[in-house]
Amino acid sequence: MAPLGELLAGVRGVLLDISGVLYDSGAGGGTAIAGSVEAVARLKRSRLKVRFCTNESQKSRAELVGQLRRLGFDISEGEVTAPAPAACQILKERGLRPHLLIHDGVRSEFDQIDTSNPNCVVIADAGESFSYQNMNSAFQVLMELENPVLISLGKGRYYKETSGLMLDVGPYMKALEYACGIQAEVVGKPSPEFFKSALQAIGVEAHQAQAILPPLCPLIPQPPRSS
Amino acid sequence: MAPLGELLAGVRGVLLDISGVLYDSGAGGGTAIAGSVEAVARLKRSRLKVRFCTNESQKSRAELVGQLRRLGFDISEGEVTAPAPAACQILKERGLRPHLLIHDGVRSEFDQIDTSNPNCVVIADAGESFSYQNMNSAFQVLMELENPVLISLGKGRYYKETSGLMLDVGPYMKALEYACGIQAEVVGKPSPEFFKSALQAIGVEAHQAQAILPPLCPLIPQPPRSS
Repeated sequence: MAPLGELLAGVRGVLLDISGVLYDSGAGGGTAIAGSVEAVARLKRSRLKVRFCTNESQKSRAELVGQLRRLGFDISEGEVTAPAPAACQILKERGLRPHLLIHDGVRSEFDQIDTSNPNCVVIADAGESFSYQNMNSAFQVLMELENPVLISLGKGRYYKETSGLMLDVGPYMKALEYACGIQAEVVGKPSPEFFKSALQAIGVEAHQAQAILPPLCPLIPQPPRSS
Repeated sequence: MAPLGELLAGVRGVLLDISGVLYDSGAGGGTAIAGSVEAVARLKRSRLKVRFCTNESQKSRAELVGQLRRLGFDISEGEVTAPAPAACQILKERGLRPHLLIHDGVRSEFDQIDTSNPNCVVIADAGESFSYQNMNSAFQVLMELENPVLISLGKGRYYKETSGLMLDVGPYMKALEYACGIQAEVVGKPSPEFFKSALQAIGVEAHQAQAILPPLCPLIPQPPRSS
């Protein structure tokens, strides 16, 4: 593994993913990945600007940050770039009123958004809320629109929980795309706009930044190999 | 509309779709499309071979035929080509043991199929059974297979019920395709093998056949246009 100093030469800012880099999600709030709490503390003591950048769309930033603080991380809500607030920004800019197919845990992020008489659908990792009935309602809303707009918070295929692999939002986005003959707009990783907005928040240009995404996690020292 | 005689010149066999041609499905068993009961009777009195060819995958052939007979149609189970029995044939030929993500109404078609220790997934229009949990189970089965095989009974985007548009199997097939990075094998319309097997059942070559599919329904006389 390259030493941290070498990896970060010429770098002014670091984008840190959360799930799979700082912690592994799962029952009881998940567990911190060994070494990650100290790695974040060290980064924040350094000259580097730090921004947390996640596709988490089952929880509000407040809930996520609370969970991470309980695990020992130095992190605040204002340091997190997440797809729900990014989507809210887009909705406001374009006068869109969403039908929300989302997890209850993230609903509070949309508190300030007008959802009456919807003219688009926002889909996120809704988990158990991806029932046939809820999918069909979102589908019917889209089919009634002259210009159907589908905004998807991420397009991940699946993620790993302690209980096994779990379908992410991507497959359900594809289902609605096929049903309606449309293409979704993805908000969140890997959209370049999403990374750009995270960099803007810390005033760092793309060429001065290093993104730390799973499964590559060079911030955390690995145990020496036994030879 | 072309007269029936002209339309069927040189034709030895007719493939008749069911939903949208013979009847409209919906609450209480659906309703026969005006003129269709007599059209079927007339065809069966003629020199033509008749085969019913449907993508219905929420009901067994027995249930479907019972429903149609109650509406007045002269039809028996042995005259119906449907995707579930076609899939069973494929499963047997290839030694596949399916995990079934299907509607309870069609489950009896798979009574003779070994579903232990599954080495493929069969997906059909499961309606309310398309829960997140059921989709995730099918996904997990596929991800554990070295060569994941997904067989889909049709790939329709949606269909119309009296209560509104309903998502068909196609979107859910696409969801699993994307999640697993695979391509499904479609059994049923519009697969050429499916039409071929229907024609084989009545001993008619493709060039001697006429398929009657919705929304084109030339068998049924239309009311004269008012000019």
